[in-house]
Amino acid sequence: MNKKFQEEVQQDALGRLISALKILPGIGPKSAQRMAYYLLQHDRAGAQVLGETLQFAVNHIGHCRMCNSFSEIDLCKTCSDDRRDSKILCIVETPSDQLMVEQTLSFKGLYYVLMGRLSPMEGQGPKELGFDVLMNRIFLTPTDGREAVSEVILATNFTSEGEATAHFLGEVLKSKGISISRIARGIPVGGELEYVDAGTLARAMMDRRPLGS
Amino acid sequence: MNKKFQEEVQQDALGRLISALKILPGIGPKSAQRMAYYLLQHDRAGAQVLGETLQFAVNHIGHCRMCNSFSEIDLCKTCSDDRRDSKILCIVETPSDQLMVEQTLSFKGLYYVLMGRLSPMEGQGPKELGFDVLMNRIFLTPTDGREAVSEVILATNFTSEGEATAHFLGEVLKSKGISISRIARGIPVGGELEYVDAGTLARAMMDRRPLGS
Repeated sequence: MNKKFQEEVQQDALGRLISALKILPGIGPKSAQRMAYYLLQHDRAGAQVLGETLQFAVNHIGHCRMCNSFSEIDLCKTCSDDRRDSKILCIVETPSDQLMVEQTLSFKGLYYVLMGRLSPMEGQGPKELGFDVLMNRIFLTPTDGREAVSEVILATNFTSEGEATAHFLGEVLKSKGISISRIARGIPVGGELEYVDAGTLARAMMDRRPLGS
Repeated sequence: MNKKFQEEVQQDALGRLISALKILPGIGPKSAQRMAYYLLQHDRAGAQVLGETLQFAVNHIGHCRMCNSFSEIDLCKTCSDDRRDSKILCIVETPSDQLMVEQTLSFKGLYYVLMGRLSPMEGQGPKELGFDVLMNRIFLTPTDGREAVSEVILATNFTSEGEATAHFLGEVLKSKGISISRIARGIPVGGELEYVDAGTLARAMMDRRPLGS
């Protein structure tokens, strides 16, 4: 009887709100409850906006047909910006990674966002990641007057899966007449040798560059 | 030019979603971005449900007219449950606190939820907390056949503000012919004296009870 009563309580609007908030990454039952109470008590207007925005986003945000990143228009703003250099293509795992590269203000080429990484454990193979689309993006001659891709920068993460993805793409792309590079691994700017892990330091030694280059 | 372009990007659906997620308590720009990407990539159905649920909750959840807790119906399930003892009223600060007491399964009376605490710093006085409504709740003779309140349990937090609230309510309620109590302070169940702070231990000594009571 009591059990049934509790379940009934769980199905009211507040219970449903708490359950719904738990879908957010990193949010458990306690945080979801705190969020629900906070919104109802202190920010109903904000909650209303969040509700509308979520629905709008879900129904309007798709993927850019060129770079595969999130976009609500067919061709995203970055891809349609003709001031960017279409000869260089930077391949990243996620839109967050793209944003990080973009924030360095040091890259003026275009992007391709994999929306993942090779991960056999999670069933993410070349097919699931749509590598055929990426190959078309790289090798098909653009019909809109842009220059074709002549250089690919592999900017996947330096995790084992990111490395495997870069290695795989490198293997597929080499001997196709385009230049391929991997972003550098080494000591972070401002980093001290004493606090850097041995693997990174070993790599920094290996990848050393002649002074003045 | 670049600044303006960035602002424009910020105003697209994705940027708006990230901004909207930042209203959640404890969620900063990085987490909001991670959540937005996660929802779009992995759980659009969940995001849709969350959006709908938020809007429904904002528009349908109000306060129970008897206990002041969140409720989508005029009289919440707890208050309308006639198996509960209407003579005992437990006063708590928030719906979470009510839930905590409820989960102990040791209280069968009714609740009153202050939806806050006395806090002059935040402009929360007796008026803002609606103490007049609380007084009516305690002293007005029920017209629905229930028994009137004869015992009040003050279960506000043991923070300085919660204590001040309990003290204030105790002062107002005493000499009105109803029994008033404060929940006990002491060593937590399973707690070891060695690890309990001095204030708690001092209080536990002071509030000691005769064996067998």
